[in-house]
Amino acid sequence: MLDAKDALSGYRYLVLAEGMFGPQTSKTANSAVRYLPGRVLAVIDSRHAGESVGDVLGFGGTIPVLATVEEGLGRGATALLIGIAPQGGQLPGSWRPMLNAAIDAGLDVVSGLHFHLSDDAELRERAAARGVRIHDLRKPPAQLPVSTGRARLVDALVVHTVGTDCNIGKMTAALQIRDALAARGTRVGFAATGQTGILIEGWGISVDAVVADFVGGAAEQLVLRAAEGNDVVLVEGQGSLVHPGYSGVTLGLLHGSMPDAMILCHQPSRQCPWNAAHRYDWMRLPSVPEMIRICESAIAPLRESRVIGIALNTWDLTDEQARDEARRLEDATGLPATDPVRFDPSPLAGAIVAAAERKRAGRAGMGG
Amino acid sequence: MLDAKDALSGYRYLVLAEGMFGPQTSKTANSAVRYLPGRVLAVIDSRHAGESVGDVLGFGGTIPVLATVEEGLGRGATALLIGIAPQGGQLPGSWRPMLNAAIDAGLDVVSGLHFHLSDDAELRERAAARGVRIHDLRKPPAQLPVSTGRARLVDALVVHTVGTDCNIGKMTAALQIRDALAARGTRVGFAATGQTGILIEGWGISVDAVVADFVGGAAEQLVLRAAEGNDVVLVEGQGSLVHPGYSGVTLGLLHGSMPDAMILCHQPSRQCPWNAAHRYDWMRLPSVPEMIRICESAIAPLRESRVIGIALNTWDLTDEQARDEARRLEDATGLPATDPVRFDPSPLAGAIVAAAERKRAGRAGMGG
Repeated sequence: MLDAKDALSGYRYLVLAEGMFGPQTSKTANSAVRYLPGRVLAVIDSRHAGESVGDVLGFGGTIPVLATVEEGLGRGATALLIGIAPQGGQLPGSWRPMLNAAIDAGLDVVSGLHFHLSDDAELRERAAARGVRIHDLRKPPAQLPVSTGRARLVDALVVHTVGTDCNIGKMTAALQIRDALAARGTRVGFAATGQTGILIEGWGISVDAVVADFVGGAAEQLVLRAAEGNDVVLVEGQGSLVHPGYSGVTLGLLHGSMPDAMILCHQPSRQCPWNAAHRYDWMRLPSVPEMIRICESAIAPLRESRVIGIALNTWDLTDEQARDEARRLEDATGLPATDPVRFDPSPLAGAIVAAAERKRAGRAGMGG
Repeated sequence: MLDAKDALSGYRYLVLAEGMFGPQTSKTANSAVRYLPGRVLAVIDSRHAGESVGDVLGFGGTIPVLATVEEGLGRGATALLIGIAPQGGQLPGSWRPMLNAAIDAGLDVVSGLHFHLSDDAELRERAAARGVRIHDLRKPPAQLPVSTGRARLVDALVVHTVGTDCNIGKMTAALQIRDALAARGTRVGFAATGQTGILIEGWGISVDAVVADFVGGAAEQLVLRAAEGNDVVLVEGQGSLVHPGYSGVTLGLLHGSMPDAMILCHQPSRQCPWNAAHRYDWMRLPSVPEMIRICESAIAPLRESRVIGIALNTWDLTDEQARDEARRLEDATGLPATDPVRFDPSPLAGAIVAAAERKRAGRAGMGG
């Protein structure tokens, strides 16, 4: 798997989000702002030049948004991060001059595109000539196994964030819960399954970039490693079991990671599956109770696993609407529901700690 | 997608199945024997040297099994076909001398391994020097889209063979049904989704070798092309929705191909998911009625689609046992059930023709 903890943990970034910086359209950029505090020095999007990150996202404070890479130089950045993931993952032609400018200025480059920058002869040679490194976060390991089901045997409680849709907050929920668990003293590992999670954690596998037969095997490897020395493993989810484009990745990840329990992520305002190019408006997303049934049924032939909490993404609601939605879903499902960014992840962390205790007690009981 | 109809439709093959030739362990070899009549001149497996293909498989008649590639030369073969697919898809080191011998003798090479022979410098250079071609059936197209759901809109009836397990007869069922439909005068297209189907049909995409995000998009492309000029499209299935290793491919294929109807493939003697290396004996396969529910539920959020027939793989049963199983499952499900190889695919072809008529009538009704 990709393991670049040393390099990735030290970078200070210029973040390229040209033409796409916004609350819903620049996931990697936004997560860097949220989870790498102090290490994002500027964001590049000429549409918002002169505004601050806080103006555009609602968080991130006074970090400036700039029109060009050149304006970002001389601020102490050590790497350029590609902060958006266009559908299909290719490199827009208009970005090449920006990448060249960064490389020529001596910045390393960190990319989560499906297209591997290090496979591009021009960029590779330019980087080599300037002595800078290119990190392709989405480049899969050369050899992966087919999954065997071994992930079900780890001692740690394995919790997987699933969702009613893609791009809905599964990584964010896992990271917020991780921080809440760590604050309680729980030893918690984070299994990053996408480019943004890898950027933050420093290691992982972007499972959507793996050859399809090996998605489950990749998930299994991640769980086995994240379980080492930990009481809880949080496996970042991808896509959704009902997403017409990405459902295969989601099921492979679910069956490979073999979670003891799931947290369902949901955005109350979302009606149709999301996609960068169009909205799949010929179908409707299932309700939360229906989606709980779908997730639990999908893993039932392999093992029993329950949804034990609901993480809401309420960025486009008022505080009052968000609280109402959480209450309504708690009533409808009997599970704790909260927006772990806007409010407090504690109800979800609490459900996980309780499940971990049940698993430990069950194992002790089996041994006795 | 891979399109090599001209080359693949003309080859006469030596089939390499060293150490694995048998009814359940050499799917590509066996399908070549069954569906490329007269074009398999010999099979290589030193364990069975001196026997005939009929002795080993129960079909295939007097085609000889030989100990070495060298013995197979001079019989009129124009290509070497790699007839087995070891788990993980790598090239066993012991095969290299055999491939070299075939290349040196001027045979083209056709391979369905995950490992692309044309990426191996030694083999590629040796083939180029000798002027022979290497066809990697599993090599995915360079650019694939994310699926959009468009496959649901084709006029042809789209039928997908799904299964309780992998390696259970989904391709074989589709091909037997295709022949039965063609014999009735139905214009039928076959969408090959694996290396063996591509070998037989001459075009297709090996969806398990595609980058995971694009499995659905690959399936969509296949359905759109196979629907051209046809009344029925048969989409070859892969894996199973409950297989711990391959389920992701299966769901991506289901959601990308958006079938109007499904044929469920099942082997009555199979208890646990299959795997070349081990048997996943920690889990049990669902029953046929339960698997019907799982398949219909998995696509229900995207569209309604029903299982309309059951294709049995009864190679390890007696005629009487096979008939009993078919009858028992017909009673349990109310659907036609038959072994389309051993008995007659007509009941399944009949169910498909009836569904195609219903679809046509429904469309005419909508237009009127």
